[in-house]
Amino acid sequence: MPQVSKKGLSMPASPIRKLTPFANQAVEKGIKIYHLNIGQPDIETPEIMLNAIKNIDFNVWAYSPSEGTASYRKKLAEYYKRNNYDIDADNILVTNGGSEAITIAMQTCINAGDEVIIPEPFYANYNGFACSAGVTVKPIVSNINDGFALPEIEEFEKLITPKTKAIIICNPNNPTGYLYSREELEALKGICLKHDLFLLCDEAYREFCYDGNEFISPMHLEGFDQHAIVLDTVSKRYSACGARLGCILTKNKEVYNVALKFAQARLSPPTVAQIAATAAVDTPQEYFDGIKEEYTARRNTLVNGLNNVPGVFCPNPKGAFYVVAKLPVDDSDKFCQWMLEEFSFEGQTVMMAPATGFYSSEGLGKQEVRMAYVLKEDDLKTALICLEKGLKEYPGRTL
Amino acid sequence: MPQVSKKGLSMPASPIRKLTPFANQAVEKGIKIYHLNIGQPDIETPEIMLNAIKNIDFNVWAYSPSEGTASYRKKLAEYYKRNNYDIDADNILVTNGGSEAITIAMQTCINAGDEVIIPEPFYANYNGFACSAGVTVKPIVSNINDGFALPEIEEFEKLITPKTKAIIICNPNNPTGYLYSREELEALKGICLKHDLFLLCDEAYREFCYDGNEFISPMHLEGFDQHAIVLDTVSKRYSACGARLGCILTKNKEVYNVALKFAQARLSPPTVAQIAATAAVDTPQEYFDGIKEEYTARRNTLVNGLNNVPGVFCPNPKGAFYVVAKLPVDDSDKFCQWMLEEFSFEGQTVMMAPATGFYSSEGLGKQEVRMAYVLKEDDLKTALICLEKGLKEYPGRTL
Repeated sequence: MPQVSKKGLSMPASPIRKLTPFANQAVEKGIKIYHLNIGQPDIETPEIMLNAIKNIDFNVWAYSPSEGTASYRKKLAEYYKRNNYDIDADNILVTNGGSEAITIAMQTCINAGDEVIIPEPFYANYNGFACSAGVTVKPIVSNINDGFALPEIEEFEKLITPKTKAIIICNPNNPTGYLYSREELEALKGICLKHDLFLLCDEAYREFCYDGNEFISPMHLEGFDQHAIVLDTVSKRYSACGARLGCILTKNKEVYNVALKFAQARLSPPTVAQIAATAAVDTPQEYFDGIKEEYTARRNTLVNGLNNVPGVFCPNPKGAFYVVAKLPVDDSDKFCQWMLEEFSFEGQTVMMAPATGFYSSEGLGKQEVRMAYVLKEDDLKTALICLEKGLKEYPGRTL
Repeated sequence: MPQVSKKGLSMPASPIRKLTPFANQAVEKGIKIYHLNIGQPDIETPEIMLNAIKNIDFNVWAYSPSEGTASYRKKLAEYYKRNNYDIDADNILVTNGGSEAITIAMQTCINAGDEVIIPEPFYANYNGFACSAGVTVKPIVSNINDGFALPEIEEFEKLITPKTKAIIICNPNNPTGYLYSREELEALKGICLKHDLFLLCDEAYREFCYDGNEFISPMHLEGFDQHAIVLDTVSKRYSACGARLGCILTKNKEVYNVALKFAQARLSPPTVAQIAATAAVDTPQEYFDGIKEEYTARRNTLVNGLNNVPGVFCPNPKGAFYVVAKLPVDDSDKFCQWMLEEFSFEGQTVMMAPATGFYSSEGLGKQEVRMAYVLKEDDLKTALICLEKGLKEYPGRTL
């Protein structure tokens, strides 16, 4: 029998999916699960976007240009200009979801065998994309006790070698919810210019900044044009994860032209999603105001609730819709599995993502879990009760 | 300024797009272009599919499972069973277009640095996907004088080295329209079993077989389950290129599971396309009968017309909607550019794809062009007149 590839064998399995069989068993036993494990929002997609799907008026469902339709890129540039990005249609390459934006940007900027520095914990699929591109991830630890702030620039410099080609950040961060400050982005700019590195900035959660904090992009910084690449998606902004529509923003013409070659090989991003996302640019501000209010309330409920559970510590993040919390347990993988396999309280339990999957350094995150606050407040409150009961019963508790 | 990757620099530009600037100039001069250069059909998408888009009834445009929705895979298995494939939902991995089916299959089956044999001329983007995966393409020449039949198996054996991991074919073939016989597929099976190679079979044009010829898939052959992988797409079948929906078919569980890890990293194929393609499985047979009749008439018009032009030779292909024709010119790249840049007849000209882009061996295809018969018969007739006039005037004519 022919062998699959070495790359395929070393491709990391999704840490979020490891627990699925145990969740399925719990459901079979009739247990209700509160899903805090995934970032699929329950928020409705804007009506203007859904209507655009329903109102399609083509007869041939044709390819779009590889870089995306001119009309979508033009409209999308309006959106970025409203966010004070100096971006034109020509700086936008439309992709099959944010995922493809990341893979194309990695393939464009980083050689197989070269290195990329990523503050950890980080979005687990960066590992998969790096494996796929043959790129080595050099993690730099951000600490829960600092609320997952950017590590000191000196720590980055310690990791830089001749093979280092880029730094990747996600802002606001998945999984920590950390929102980078202007000072932190300026510091990253400094190190990128000094060592001639690309900064790949994944801004999937741009819309989700709380407590009046301002979102800062590398696109807002002077003199960073040739090094900064923004990776975006409509998935979270419009609760349209199934659209599979993202984009790469860059003012570096060489990067754009090389990325376009990868885009041309796969022909086209999806046509209906582009029609819908063109309409979505006109989503009224109230939609976002409502979501921000909702998520702020949810975050407050979750973070306060978590910090009221004995032995639990959870920083109060300023963005995205995730928190990483420290639990009084021996091993978060075991605990999360135990919550599904062995535990229930009044026929209910909680599914969380063990944070180990978001760390690249072996052994880190063993007391941490990621929770997505994509459920209504009442459900979050019940989930918190389940968690507290679970922590009291769990045989591996450390408190 | 940071450097882009070596892979990015060596990524081949699309041969079809090289001529775009010249086409744009012709349009600016007011010249009407008959586009025989691309495989975007003018056929309407089935109404049942378009209606499914218009009738979406979700409020949250959510992710689908990474392998595709259960309902789509189940329905799609029905389609394959109708085509006598022994395929269940569990053997189907849904992808972002046929393109992603090819890239995931390549990454799953072939190591970076290893080799794959592909009969040439072949679909140009295989080069891009191979470059992206770090895989070396070993072309094996099929000849226009044999109507581009499969080269002798001995020729394959000459190319096999310890690094050879797979053979890739496209059936019916793009760009040649060649339809592989059962005997040819059995011969490929023999060599794959003997040398433990995967056969990756791109069946994008399965529906387009003419003159009563039967379509044969590796899935129709006994004892080939663990080696055969079919790559498919709804793009051509339903004239839905913009849906970006394809799939991988395999009964090899290890291949499936590894491919799934690549699929999980990019999260999800598009949701609306899956809803529409689920409906499309019930497209009435008359739709396909009508298309087959239309394409047969177009092919006959084009092939007969071409063979009536002095110095032109065009085999009569049994499938797809392409032909590769030999022209009495010095250099098909120059000729195709000249047709756009210098020539017009009654304000009209023809855009074709130089065949050089479909050959991996340097210097081949210099007298050949690919033409897609995606235009109505009357337009094809006018295009043929333009081509004949052009060939008479072209300074590099060899007749």
